[in-house]
Amino acid sequence: MKIFGIDPGSERTGYGCIETDGSRHRIVTCGAISSRASLAFPDRLLAIHTQLTALLLECRPDCVAIESLFFATNVRSALKLGHARGVAMLAAVEAGVPVVEYTPAEIKRAVVGYGRAEKHQVQEMVKLILGMAVVPSPHDAADALAVAICHVHSRLPAGLVARPKAARGKAATSWRHYRVGR
Amino acid sequence: MKIFGIDPGSERTGYGCIETDGSRHRIVTCGAISSRASLAFPDRLLAIHTQLTALLLECRPDCVAIESLFFATNVRSALKLGHARGVAMLAAVEAGVPVVEYTPAEIKRAVVGYGRAEKHQVQEMVKLILGMAVVPSPHDAADALAVAICHVHSRLPAGLVARPKAARGKAATSWRHYRVGR
Repeated sequence: MKIFGIDPGSERTGYGCIETDGSRHRIVTCGAISSRASLAFPDRLLAIHTQLTALLLECRPDCVAIESLFFATNVRSALKLGHARGVAMLAAVEAGVPVVEYTPAEIKRAVVGYGRAEKHQVQEMVKLILGMAVVPSPHDAADALAVAICHVHSRLPAGLVARPKAARGKAATSWRHYRVGR
Repeated sequence: MKIFGIDPGSERTGYGCIETDGSRHRIVTCGAISSRASLAFPDRLLAIHTQLTALLLECRPDCVAIESLFFATNVRSALKLGHARGVAMLAAVEAGVPVVEYTPAEIKRAVVGYGRAEKHQVQEMVKLILGMAVVPSPHDAADALAVAICHVHSRLPAGLVARPKAARGKAATSWRHYRVGR
């Protein structure tokens, strides 16, 4: 099963695709879509949509997992974030891929085991679970991978949740390629 | 010049296209895109995007005018509205049409002449300006036409603003067709 995680943002949209057989996860690709600050807002949305569409065509995931946010620092930032999430969801549904949403607490619980974990703890666990040498950079990519991992863990029966490879003292060899940025 | 106004909403998105020579405006089309309440949210976004794309292809406007909202009743509704605005803006930029935004106060000032006008006053003025027999229904269509009218009035030099036809005691004959819904 392939899961494509998205961490949308109007300035930078993180993405990360993982492949799993239920017990072992490997990273397919991850990165972030960012556009020049000088670009008009509609053109930024176009960049997010175009690049996500191309990535979904390339990765052909079984599912798109996206963070659901029902709070934000203020209404203005929620409105801006909504635009980016809207075009990200559109790219998924146009690609015929089902979309699932997880709250930040669900993601933290599924990845770290604690719903109020710190952001850097989530990113460290992503690194361990996927057997990566370093935390994916930019952090939006790690956040997107966390949503994808959350989807896998949420679907596994209790007790079958994959443990981090590093925690099992095993070197990571199973991921195909790791790419940041496009 | 043809202007395509959009009043986005996650449940119903109003649209209205007008054509103007600077002094006379005529309605090209207006209506609202609504989707079944049973549809999943990503599918609703797809419906908005698909139908707006088709309408923009049909109308070939010179400009898309959209209401800019920096406030909402709450963060959750702002986030939902943002999704709809995002896919609406995307449809415009994909069609190669420039997007302009106007605040609710700017729209009221341009259409009614008073930035704190009531919603029904704006809708009545839309009816008068475009020489329509009744206020366009649903009201989202009238709101979308108001944004389009705002764009025309905002671009006209002072004193050249078109007055409502009915206010000049003249029958409306200049609009091509008036269609609600699709």
